[in-house]
Amino acid sequence: MSSLDQVTQALAALSIKPTATISHAAANSPASWKDALSADISSPKSFELIKTIIYKPKTAKNATTVPVVVIVREETETASGALGKKLNLKELRLASEDLLSEFFALDKNSLSPIALNPTIFPKVTVVLDSSITLSEAVFAIHAGSSSDTVFISGKDLVSYLKSLETADAKVQEVDFAALKAEAAAPAASKLKDSSDKVPSKGENPIQIAIGAKKDEDFSAWYTDVSHFGVVLIKADMLDYYNVSGCYILKPWSYSIWEIIQRWFDDKIKALGVQNAYFPMFVSQKVLEREKDHIEGFSPEVAWVTRAGQSELEEHIAIRPTSETAMYPYYSKWIKSHRDLPLKLNQWNSVVRWEFKSPQPFIRTREFLWQEGHTAHLTREEADKEVLEILDLYRRVYEELLAVPVIPGVKSEKEKFAGGLYTTTVEGFIPTSGRGIQGATSHCLGTNFSNSNMFDIFVEDPNDPVGKAKIYVWQNSWGLSTRSIGVMVMVHGDDQGLVLPPRVASVQAVVVPCGITAKTTDEERKRINDKCEELAQSLRAADIRAKADLRDGYTPGWKFNDWEQKGVPLRLEIGPQDIAKNQTLTVRRDTGKKDPVSLEGLPQTVSALLEDIQKDLFIRAKETYQERVKAITKWEDLVPALDNKNVVVIPWCEREQCEDDIKERSARAAEPTDERAPSAGAKSLCIPFDQSKWDPVEPGKTKCVACGQDAKRWAMFGRSY
Amino acid sequence: MSSLDQVTQALAALSIKPTATISHAAANSPASWKDALSADISSPKSFELIKTIIYKPKTAKNATTVPVVVIVREETETASGALGKKLNLKELRLASEDLLSEFFALDKNSLSPIALNPTIFPKVTVVLDSSITLSEAVFAIHAGSSSDTVFISGKDLVSYLKSLETADAKVQEVDFAALKAEAAAPAASKLKDSSDKVPSKGENPIQIAIGAKKDEDFSAWYTDVSHFGVVLIKADMLDYYNVSGCYILKPWSYSIWEIIQRWFDDKIKALGVQNAYFPMFVSQKVLEREKDHIEGFSPEVAWVTRAGQSELEEHIAIRPTSETAMYPYYSKWIKSHRDLPLKLNQWNSVVRWEFKSPQPFIRTREFLWQEGHTAHLTREEADKEVLEILDLYRRVYEELLAVPVIPGVKSEKEKFAGGLYTTTVEGFIPTSGRGIQGATSHCLGTNFSNSNMFDIFVEDPNDPVGKAKIYVWQNSWGLSTRSIGVMVMVHGDDQGLVLPPRVASVQAVVVPCGITAKTTDEERKRINDKCEELAQSLRAADIRAKADLRDGYTPGWKFNDWEQKGVPLRLEIGPQDIAKNQTLTVRRDTGKKDPVSLEGLPQTVSALLEDIQKDLFIRAKETYQERVKAITKWEDLVPALDNKNVVVIPWCEREQCEDDIKERSARAAEPTDERAPSAGAKSLCIPFDQSKWDPVEPGKTKCVACGQDAKRWAMFGRSY
Repeated sequence: MSSLDQVTQALAALSIKPTATISHAAANSPASWKDALSADISSPKSFELIKTIIYKPKTAKNATTVPVVVIVREETETASGALGKKLNLKELRLASEDLLSEFFALDKNSLSPIALNPTIFPKVTVVLDSSITLSEAVFAIHAGSSSDTVFISGKDLVSYLKSLETADAKVQEVDFAALKAEAAAPAASKLKDSSDKVPSKGENPIQIAIGAKKDEDFSAWYTDVSHFGVVLIKADMLDYYNVSGCYILKPWSYSIWEIIQRWFDDKIKALGVQNAYFPMFVSQKVLEREKDHIEGFSPEVAWVTRAGQSELEEHIAIRPTSETAMYPYYSKWIKSHRDLPLKLNQWNSVVRWEFKSPQPFIRTREFLWQEGHTAHLTREEADKEVLEILDLYRRVYEELLAVPVIPGVKSEKEKFAGGLYTTTVEGFIPTSGRGIQGATSHCLGTNFSNSNMFDIFVEDPNDPVGKAKIYVWQNSWGLSTRSIGVMVMVHGDDQGLVLPPRVASVQAVVVPCGITAKTTDEERKRINDKCEELAQSLRAADIRAKADLRDGYTPGWKFNDWEQKGVPLRLEIGPQDIAKNQTLTVRRDTGKKDPVSLEGLPQTVSALLEDIQKDLFIRAKETYQERVKAITKWEDLVPALDNKNVVVIPWCEREQCEDDIKERSARAAEPTDERAPSAGAKSLCIPFDQSKWDPVEPGKTKCVACGQDAKRWAMFGRSY
Repeated sequence: MSSLDQVTQALAALSIKPTATISHAAANSPASWKDALSADISSPKSFELIKTIIYKPKTAKNATTVPVVVIVREETETASGALGKKLNLKELRLASEDLLSEFFALDKNSLSPIALNPTIFPKVTVVLDSSITLSEAVFAIHAGSSSDTVFISGKDLVSYLKSLETADAKVQEVDFAALKAEAAAPAASKLKDSSDKVPSKGENPIQIAIGAKKDEDFSAWYTDVSHFGVVLIKADMLDYYNVSGCYILKPWSYSIWEIIQRWFDDKIKALGVQNAYFPMFVSQKVLEREKDHIEGFSPEVAWVTRAGQSELEEHIAIRPTSETAMYPYYSKWIKSHRDLPLKLNQWNSVVRWEFKSPQPFIRTREFLWQEGHTAHLTREEADKEVLEILDLYRRVYEELLAVPVIPGVKSEKEKFAGGLYTTTVEGFIPTSGRGIQGATSHCLGTNFSNSNMFDIFVEDPNDPVGKAKIYVWQNSWGLSTRSIGVMVMVHGDDQGLVLPPRVASVQAVVVPCGITAKTTDEERKRINDKCEELAQSLRAADIRAKADLRDGYTPGWKFNDWEQKGVPLRLEIGPQDIAKNQTLTVRRDTGKKDPVSLEGLPQTVSALLEDIQKDLFIRAKETYQERVKAITKWEDLVPALDNKNVVVIPWCEREQCEDDIKERSARAAEPTDERAPSAGAKSLCIPFDQSKWDPVEPGKTKCVACGQDAKRWAMFGRSY
């Protein structure tokens, strides 16, 4: 009997008749579930999804774990901290996949209230969103698998759960809206600081706040799709898409990419780089030309095998990167040393069909990037360019995104597949204590140009006979939308995104305040007009400013909205401000409030924005510096990692030693959360600037990991 | 026995032993042939391709056709006009596929000298490139199919051909370099006009000129890959790619796209449009949601079915356009009238796997474009935007590309699949007399937003109860890199490309002249420095100028090079110019030469560039106007088309009538060239501006095609 039939039968036993039951494509997110249901004509015209979340409370050793099963409407925000307090349970954490399969024999996508049965019910704490019991909506519930759904009323859902109750085990109904309001009270009172002039300020912040705390549940804060309060969604940066591992870049994030593009494009053009566009398709033969290279990429290549109704004779790859697609043409175009240097770049998307779990911006199956591919006559020229480009990448991170990075060279194990050496700028995410690769600039040497490969050569201009072949020196370098994800992770906070002014598409928002029910239309217009006038005066000074004159929203709602979206500076304008010819400025990064005169406002705002940009960078840089721990004894290494640091060690630079470090530094303790860092430490880079640490003395300084002679200080860490 | 074995045997009979024989992927172009050969390790280290071209001379009626088989080196340019004269044959045209299969039972990709045998040889005229007989190279020759190749020496190739000779039929050896020099003589003498001061000017123009004349063989001029003198290759606009139907956009063409992008992007942002990025992948279910729409696109959709070694459970399409990929999210994002209008745009590439023969820029399997997708509360708003965007498209063509277009609305038959109505700007290619669609702006109505489709609605803000649903009005609009192809076809000439100044990445090139063997190093430096100084002064005035100081090339070679690339203005600087404080300006479009003072040069050059821009547009506009023939009698219609016009007729606007017109206007005569226009006329658009023609009187004016009541004047023509 199918799980769907079993469920129908169980419901029938309680005289519950589903509105509909359907089978559909397996859903791995609420969005894809909703899509699958909407696509089926048997689905009810309107319905809501039921979200089932399992938390594991912190439990004393040897005590039995009693998971908390939370059954809520799709849109309900579950404040795990407040819920724990209410239930008198410590540190509710999202349960691991192991726990789910142990208790329910289900993965997280298949979970549903129906998974509760007389056996399981007494072993768990069941929490029900009280608004479900009152709702007239039809609810969609998974029936034993993520590809089966039954639709039932809220009343029937409650009946089902009540039928499982025993004397000791009852369903606990919770009013999450009220719970959230309590939890948010301090935040609301903080907002009240300036509420003397704005009666409605701070109204309803609870319905719009971020649902997860950055320090408590970083993964949920950043991405977890079951949390509808995550920073990326709330900030309107992206939306989930119904092809797994792909995301929609909404204007709020795409505009950041446009700013990065414009800046970097100008810089590389000044270096003589030209833009071009190569097709996204690569023939199998060409793709597989370089063996090391293809070994690095082939497990992730997406293949087109069919067009319309025709099977293609030769399967065609979608580029994972373009070296092998481009270089046959470099071979054709480069005939003489006069054709060098050849410096091309393209802004495009590439596809790497990773099977690891995707993460928006950080690991996605399609991503946007630029890839530069250059050819040079000499190694000196190639080496020089590698570093010039790397420094531009550093500047994108540090000067635009206010994210500090450490430039260095990758170990042999971590270098670009098929290349000669790889340089990198390495970032750091304090909240997870993990390193993250920012962007890489590779020297390919003559590994791709040599006669066995793409045969790209010129005759030596300095050879008197002019017949000696010089195989060209090649570089490739890329920066992707991952940079945006790093920026979000570094600067975001519990209120949402924090945007550095230089990449914010709205740098300052002007919000009208002090409008109440008693305000006359004329007065309202006067305040709104003043806001628009100020925004215009700022725009005239090249500040990206906007007046938020939306009707029907309170100032408090607007404050929250722009805070979530990370707008660097807010200007509040009420009747008293106008009277005093001033405005209240509120910094997004520090929350600091200052009344400033409307005289010379553009200059004041420009200066404030520069301060914010600088301060964001300085704070992040100080944190990074504190969290790069110089380690000289192996015993100190894993504890440092466990304390959310990365480390630098004198290192022998042997691949075998690198493998050993990874294995020995894997977290011994069982992970309490499926998404918690557990992998061992990888080498992140060998920093160019070695001057911060004691000099490595040849033959004397030993590798911290293996005791052999150390060569240089190398940075290791858990990473993305 | 395989064709390869047969060939080997035939050669063996003459004691000819091939250097190598290999089988490979079928080659449909010299580039793919070369790639296939290079990829095979059995191929000789270096070799040349043999190009075999079949011409059909104009022959008296009833006379037997004697095709001309021209066997040349890959790089040899065959001047068909001059060759005809030499052979005393009239109007050599490339032979049709029919002729090829009749004589050789081969398609044009498989043709080779080996296809000549004792039966065929006497029936054709065989012309051999005399340089082959003298060459020491190894030559690649197809052996009976485009996927088999034998490598033999030039000497052996001659032996083979000689073995077929009879008393009446001999191989004719032709020195094509000499032939071309004779043909080019007038052009060379034209260049000599200014040679009084530049001894080396005009040197060797023959080796670098475009190989085909625009008026004589337009198709070859634009694209034919077997002609290595084609305008697109010579101008360095693109290169052929080893995935059929895909092309590499080189910086010279991509820079034009960048200029179009920047201009259009600024304009739409001023209209409140924001950029975003949706994934390139679309799930099958979502793609197939709108039936009319998918019927229009499904034969051309490319499918990803495999990733790494894993077969995908659900096949995933690469977007042919993004309506169905985006609109499920529009449904999610649009909750209230306050969310309207929603105006998103993306700059991306789309894939339409057409099986018709591809043409660079005009019909390619992957192409770059922008696609705008907007949603509005009212039809009025949507209608207004459709026209605003269309006018921006008109301006891209007319103001940037100097290409005149006629704005209008498409017939029901030609509108966007699934949309409500389609507006278009229609261009015209005088050389072929064909219309070409420039860009389209669609109103989708509520066809995609309705409840059976994507269900995108808001509650009516004007409904007192506020519950009435309004399905949103949607538009979509797109402009692609096709625009670049239209520009090339309209302005290019026999010297190569002609770029309108506003889209030229180099608007003015400064070429040092008068440097001879006797010139001292000091004098050479003085002239070069002056060129660089002038280029810098122009750049300081925002003119995209460049000094061509390349060593080792004569001024004549440089003139030709920049003429082929279409640079609008050339400035020549020699010792006498410096003495007179002047420079000779040479317009690319007219060839007009004027000495101008170096005083105020930036102003002079700016004005000249504006003149060139204006003149290009005026000339093209006059031509278009002359070639839109108002037709009021059916008998005049086909002759007008045959004379390379498009027509406007009073039309009934019925689809049946449109089908009839297409059928009845198909060219009756057998095409003399496989690529010549032969299709019937399609409706191009119903022009918005009807005022140029006699008013259509309801009930009186009849449709020219069917005699029923006419509604409006409609433009018909053969098209791309």
